[in-house]
This record gives sequence, C-alpha cells and structure tokens, in this order.
Amino acid sequence: MPHITIDSGEPGIRGLFAFRPETAGPLNALAEALLRGDNTLTRGERELIAAYVSGLNECRYCTASHAAFAAAQLPGGMDLVDRVRAGEAGAEISPKLQTLLAIAAAVQRSGREVTGDLVDAAKAEGATDRELHDTVLIAAAFCMFNRYVDGLATHAPDDPAFYATSAERIVTHGYGHPAPQPAPQQAGHLG
Amino acid sequence: MPHITIDSGEPGIRGLFAFRPETAGPLNALAEALLRGDNTLTRGERELIAAYVSGLNECRYCTASHAAFAAAQLPGGMDLVDRVRAGEAGAEISPKLQTLLAIAAAVQRSGREVTGDLVDAAKAEGATDRELHDTVLIAAAFCMFNRYVDGLATHAPDDPAFYATSAERIVTHGYGHPAPQPAPQQAGHLG
Repeated sequence: MPHITIDSGEPGIRGLFAFRPETAGPLNALAEALLRGDNTLTRGERELIAAYVSGLNECRYCTASHAAFAAAQLPGGMDLVDRVRAGEAGAEISPKLQTLLAIAAAVQRSGREVTGDLVDAAKAEGATDRELHDTVLIAAAFCMFNRYVDGLATHAPDDPAFYATSAERIVTHGYGHPAPQPAPQQAGHLG
Repeated sequence: MPHITIDSGEPGIRGLFAFRPETAGPLNALAEALLRGDNTLTRGERELIAAYVSGLNECRYCTASHAAFAAAQLPGGMDLVDRVRAGEAGAEISPKLQTLLAIAAAVQRSGREVTGDLVDAAKAEGATDRELHDTVLIAAAFCMFNRYVDGLATHAPDDPAFYATSAERIVTHGYGHPAPQPAPQQAGHLG
C-alpha cells in the first residue's frame, strides 16, 4: 500500500503525477527532452540506459516500464534488453553503448564514481560530449525517479500487459500524455 | 577539470545548464516548484532537506549552494544548517522536521529504505501526505542533481562568497534566473 493516499488509484509514478501536477509537469518535460528529444543516441538506446539503471536500483515499476519502452524501440526487443540487464549482451550492442552503460552504472553508485578512465574509454569509442552529458543525466534522473516511486511505496502491477500498453502510449504520444481513464459504465439499454 | 568541455566556464550545475538548455528548463522548473512553490514547509526547511541530502551524497557544490540558500531563509542561519548536517540540532528544529529529515536520509540510501515506521513517525508529528510526498521528491531530486554535478566532474568554487552571491539571487529571483555575466572590459579612455 502506498505511504500516502493516491486518490486516482493509479500505480507507480502515474498516481504520483495525479497527486501533484505541479511537479509532474517538469518531470514529464525532463523525460521527454532526455529520452525522446533530438539526439545522436536513439530513443531505444536511451530507454535501455533508463531500464538498466532502474534495474540496478531494483525499482520494479520503473524497470518493467522502461524495459518495455526500450524493447518497443530496439531491433533486439525484450530479449536484448534482458541480456543487457544481465550483462550478457556483448557484441550485440556497440562498443560505444557498452562504455556508456558502464558510466551509467558508475552514476548509479555515486557521481564521484565516474572516473576519467571511464570517460576516456567512451571517448575512444566515439562518444561525444553531449552523449556523455546525456548518459550521466539519464542515469542520474533515474536515481531520482526510482527513489520517488519506491520511496512512496507505490504499486507495481504484475501483469506485463500493463507495461506493454504504457509502451504503446509512450512510443506514440511521448511523456506527459495522460493514460486513458476507464470507460464510463455502459448504460443498460445498450447491453 | 570537467569530463566535458563547458564553453561558458561556469562552475557546477550552471555550466551544465548553459551546455544543455533543453534539459536546464525542466530541471529549473522542478527546483522552483519543489523548493519555492506554495507549501506548508517553509522555503528554508525545504532547502535544508536539499542541503542535508547533498551532504550525505558528498556533493561539495550542491551542499555549499543549498546550505547557503537554507541559511539565508532560516532564522538559525548557517549555524543551524551546520548543526542539522552534523546531527546535532535536536530541539532547535521541530519534531516533524526531524522525522522528515530521517525519511530524506532513507531516500538517499534507496527508495526501498523508506519504511512504514518512518512514515508513521512523521504522520504522528503531523506531517501531511503532501509534506511526505515533497520530502521524498526533494530527497530523490537531489540524488539526481548531486550525481549530475559530480558525474561530469564540474568545478566547485572554494570561496564561500560565490555561494552567498548565488543565495541572494535565488532568494530574490528564484531558480532559472541566469547569473549575471562578467561586465565587458571597460574602454581605455574611461580608465
């Protein structure tokens, strides 16, 4: 049960967005800019970083959500996401993305864990300053989102269909587009 | 030296905001809503939570900044901020704020560390659902800001006057108001 009363009854971050729209706006705008804005990293690659960090933080809702969003936008689908999260993807992902994931893992532990060696390795694989910046900020942002969702003990649905439906909405409409509300009960004469 | 080239030469998060304005906008809007928007927690109390979490994350730039912003808006000033950060404030802060700081410390470790007991203790001291929400989100947000600033190895000035000047600007104008640029060099005939 969540630590606070979520009137909308929605799970995960959705209920928190409904509870406090004043902070939902900037949080959705941040996710949209980072994960879907113009970038030399694909949307799938950025969602993969988000899913990977959420897994390291053991946040069930965010991991399932962003794994689904990554899978929907990567040629390798959920199999690839699972192998990356298990550290078994190897040559299936580019050397550059491997070095960026190593930086994201360091950020998850602490900003001070991002060493010059990690950064040099990414630059040697062709990572630009902006890709380094965005990788660090995506990883840092999910250290926030994961703590927000779990720190208020929100509900994480078990059904994979919930996250697949969210993925369809995010891929089509982006962040900040409200989830459809349950349809009003049909009037009896239509039954 | 920062891990990426910061053309503006500005320290800490300021240089990062100049480097990537697309994410600076939502990040400043989040800080403004959380730390300065209408709230039953005072601005000083909210900046104190930010400084406390930044200290736990050992982020020198954010700790010095938000300690200065808290000190400028709390009757107890920097002495109180220092005692809270050292765990020596005791009765100088309200029992409610003490329980909220304990929740913030749990969030800094992991969202999953926020137990029902910690939340019940805060509710017993009168904390509302919205105060609980905002405490968790402020603490989570600084787990992002701290990792962002340190993960890119930005510069943290040593001079306390730098942070005092920032505090004046934040208290007067809020987040997202640009710092004044150095005045252009005076023409010789005025010398």
